[in-house]
Amino acid sequence: MALETPNHTQTVAGWAAYDSSGKIAPYIFKRRENGVNDVTIQVMYCGICHTDLHHVKDDWGITMYPVVPGHEITGVITKVGSNVKNFKLGDRVGVGCLAASCLECEFCKNSQENYCDQIQFTYNGIFWDGSITYGGYSEMLVADHRYVVHVPDNLPMDAAAPLLCAGITVFSPMKDCQLLESPGKKVGIVGLGGLGHVAVKMAKAFGHQVTVISTSPSKENEAKQRLGADYFLVSTDAKQMQRGKRTLDVILDTVPAKHSLGPILELLKVNGTLVVVGAPDRPIELPSFPLIFGKRAVKGSMTGGMKETQEMMDVCGKHNITCDVELIKPDKINQALDRLARNDVRYRFVIDIAGTSKL
Amino acid sequence: MALETPNHTQTVAGWAAYDSSGKIAPYIFKRRENGVNDVTIQVMYCGICHTDLHHVKDDWGITMYPVVPGHEITGVITKVGSNVKNFKLGDRVGVGCLAASCLECEFCKNSQENYCDQIQFTYNGIFWDGSITYGGYSEMLVADHRYVVHVPDNLPMDAAAPLLCAGITVFSPMKDCQLLESPGKKVGIVGLGGLGHVAVKMAKAFGHQVTVISTSPSKENEAKQRLGADYFLVSTDAKQMQRGKRTLDVILDTVPAKHSLGPILELLKVNGTLVVVGAPDRPIELPSFPLIFGKRAVKGSMTGGMKETQEMMDVCGKHNITCDVELIKPDKINQALDRLARNDVRYRFVIDIAGTSKL
Repeated sequence: MALETPNHTQTVAGWAAYDSSGKIAPYIFKRRENGVNDVTIQVMYCGICHTDLHHVKDDWGITMYPVVPGHEITGVITKVGSNVKNFKLGDRVGVGCLAASCLECEFCKNSQENYCDQIQFTYNGIFWDGSITYGGYSEMLVADHRYVVHVPDNLPMDAAAPLLCAGITVFSPMKDCQLLESPGKKVGIVGLGGLGHVAVKMAKAFGHQVTVISTSPSKENEAKQRLGADYFLVSTDAKQMQRGKRTLDVILDTVPAKHSLGPILELLKVNGTLVVVGAPDRPIELPSFPLIFGKRAVKGSMTGGMKETQEMMDVCGKHNITCDVELIKPDKINQALDRLARNDVRYRFVIDIAGTSKL
Repeated sequence: MALETPNHTQTVAGWAAYDSSGKIAPYIFKRRENGVNDVTIQVMYCGICHTDLHHVKDDWGITMYPVVPGHEITGVITKVGSNVKNFKLGDRVGVGCLAASCLECEFCKNSQENYCDQIQFTYNGIFWDGSITYGGYSEMLVADHRYVVHVPDNLPMDAAAPLLCAGITVFSPMKDCQLLESPGKKVGIVGLGGLGHVAVKMAKAFGHQVTVISTSPSKENEAKQRLGADYFLVSTDAKQMQRGKRTLDVILDTVPAKHSLGPILELLKVNGTLVVVGAPDRPIELPSFPLIFGKRAVKGSMTGGMKETQEMMDVCGKHNITCDVELIKPDKINQALDRLARNDVRYRFVIDIAGTSKL
């Protein structure tokens, strides 16, 4: 589709998966001309999100090949449309999951574009002009300015890139659960990956007592010493989990694989909230007893709106929060995806698209 | 245990299941003397709750036999302890699920006794004196007055009995979701059984637009004409469910069997809440996509506190809400349980314990 769209005249070098083998190879494609509401961005870095893995392998059965993944994008503005007032040439910016929304519904009007039912994503979406969207595994991006945010000056562009998805995905439910304005809560973070590690940093920066819940006992030291967590529970250790019953106010579950919520729910106080931000492809097991006996809630949350994404970037700038990343060159994307599938990364791979880092 | 407890001197005739066959037979047992905080109640009626079925068959692996079920009890006070000021001889009263709690925790102090972690139930619980509790399938009950409520004068004792569990179980989450004070919401009720039918009546009385969601197309007429529902969706009809997407504010799921929440969650608006009040013995299937894409919440709720149970009775008195019941004699309990297991009841069996009704 994209190749046939009339104004898609700019040739871009990128990296795509061509089929459900999920193997990534170079891909030359076209992007649209910079429109009046667009900015063109020279991509510097792009994080590798677990969602990319699901998409390249078509785990959800919705992938349109070739797919150019990537929605944790940082770069520099090289063109500005005539309607765009809040960005200028040379600005350091970020693009996350959103490429388009209806702009007219109650959610778009309240900057909750992420819940617009016409939402289109940065890759594997259908843009307003009918073209398939291609993501940040590419040297250049044209984005509507309404889905672009500023990156604070003090944040390095490589370690800031994963904030555009991992960061906002955990920030939005924290804000929703009033964790920004009421310190001293007891917060649990399930899973210590790309999302979990930045959630720990944020929860600590917001003044909370943080418990990491993980299947890997080996992560206890890094959780406490590297990331500042206060407590660590091994989720497969029934005694530890028993001792933790009814102790936590809010839990963020970042695990993108199928698992039972029962033992995790028991950790919540009465009326506590567990927010699911991972997206397992098979249904989660929800036992009714810990839910009803504790009047607990399991909530979903998906990325964030544009206003809160900018707020998240600014808050990260203020607290100097970035992600712990492993930088790779584009020719190492396949190895990185393999390692990510095995959870072998501390904590996010970021592709040095522009080749500006020493690797 | 109960037989050995020193002050358990009152002989009572009741009906118990003796093993996991679940068959009910007469059972003569002892109850404690009426203590200073107790009232003694001549039981008139007792509803048959789906939980009774789970207990007599030991579906949850926690049944202590012989078990005398029944926690939807209405009757008349025949003795009053010296510390009891709010009840007198002859009062029409009700007893629900709760027999004891710690009286000291934050939940007991706020009359959320149902969430006290020392909670003991009206049957198959362990009372303060160490005795096993026996429920309302019996001619007489001794209850601590703190777990007893008044039945409004205008409510018939038979049709009011199921309010003590079915009624409060759906009332509490409705109150929690602000449905008492903000009419005009779009409320879904999943399942049209003992809980569901009274939920429809309450939601209509509180001024909401009510949609019944059921697997049985045959229930459409009764849902609308008998109970006053506005809309009816067959949950197995994908087209109907698709048309209902994003239309409801709150859903109460009363189905006590395993089922997927996915199609039901899709009916909720963004930020909508589904409350689970049924207790399937196997985990519920919770697909992550409808949860996270709609920022929806699945909450649990278990019966209610004593203050809100009295409030529920009073509200039912005000709106003249009772349950639609099938009265049976005690010798028909086994047939009733069999029919309940097949959902063959409109909508609650109630046992005429005192033999005061013409059957």
